[in-house]
Amino acid sequence: MSGALDYIRDGAEIYRHSFAIIRSEARLERFSPAEERVAVRIIHACGMTEVAQDIEFAPGVVETAQTALRAGAPIFCDANMVAYGVTRARLPAANEVICTLADPQVPALAQKTGNTRSAAALELWRERMGGAVVAIGNAPTALFRLLEMLREGAPMPAAIIGMPVGFVGAAESKEALEAYGRAPFIVVQGRKGGSAMAAAAINALASEKE
Amino acid sequence: MSGALDYIRDGAEIYRHSFAIIRSEARLERFSPAEERVAVRIIHACGMTEVAQDIEFAPGVVETAQTALRAGAPIFCDANMVAYGVTRARLPAANEVICTLADPQVPALAQKTGNTRSAAALELWRERMGGAVVAIGNAPTALFRLLEMLREGAPMPAAIIGMPVGFVGAAESKEALEAYGRAPFIVVQGRKGGSAMAAAAINALASEKE
Repeated sequence: MSGALDYIRDGAEIYRHSFAIIRSEARLERFSPAEERVAVRIIHACGMTEVAQDIEFAPGVVETAQTALRAGAPIFCDANMVAYGVTRARLPAANEVICTLADPQVPALAQKTGNTRSAAALELWRERMGGAVVAIGNAPTALFRLLEMLREGAPMPAAIIGMPVGFVGAAESKEALEAYGRAPFIVVQGRKGGSAMAAAAINALASEKE
Repeated sequence: MSGALDYIRDGAEIYRHSFAIIRSEARLERFSPAEERVAVRIIHACGMTEVAQDIEFAPGVVETAQTALRAGAPIFCDANMVAYGVTRARLPAANEVICTLADPQVPALAQKTGNTRSAAALELWRERMGGAVVAIGNAPTALFRLLEMLREGAPMPAAIIGMPVGFVGAAESKEALEAYGRAPFIVVQGRKGGSAMAAAAINALASEKE
């Protein structure tokens, strides 16, 4: 028998159709045009239009992040899955995409600081963190640790994608990021988040192409 | 000022606490004990206890997949993000984790077959697909293409993790997988899914450790 099934096989058409469905179903009115493109891509990554209500932007963060990326800012990720979700062809300045989780210094740093490896890995971002784009898509402890570093005077990133996922600390770490007041954040509030949403935010900031 | 914030810093305790919250909140009664461990880990990956209602298992698929992995079955993934989500330390036989999406043959295969690169990449699985564990966490076209290959007589995997995400074809490809009747599937029905959930399913099948 023939095995052929009926489905759309053209990648560009799948994208167009997907984004049209998102824009027809999701409540996007409260976003600026620049924010809306980021929100649409986050929704695309998770298949849930209702996530629109959980996405929050600090004022001007999209423009600041775009400017930083065009100027060559590095992108720091808390997990390899985030780094592998960033589409290199969309990056405007062949920006470095860096995940330090597997660095050989990290286990000792984690033991010394009494924190997770995900949090300890941020120590290796410190020198280049000023003006960078930071994407936390996995570990709440990484976002808490980033906030601690900022409270202790570490240089401020151009944008902080705060999208750790899960049941312990995820919602709380994003609340703390928003409450900090001085951080240029993009968050998905609550328990939802993850590497795909964080990478989607980066991909939207990197290029206006849909 | 001191920057210290109040949060749980111990990875093992975060896991224990997370899994306890999931088991207290999610509706897991309809699962066998083996299925329940897989469902809990999928929920853990997405932060949504309500996803329990969308998870479906073919009869016996968990045991079949565990046996295959212990015997050294390779794990084929449709996206690098899935492959990077598989925790190598949990694999029982140092199983190969393979994503062929970036193989140099794939663009020409996609053009020749008039399909996406995600779907075309499956041609390179064919020879080793019998008895393998397959994880589709991104592209509906990859899951549709897998079904076409099976309908055309390709060798049957030991387990098919069907968790593509999105608005075009995701729900339909998973319905087709369940309807096929002969495939050992684990799916998250509907639009939800993604690389984190697919990798979580693999991680649960690979080891009973929580």
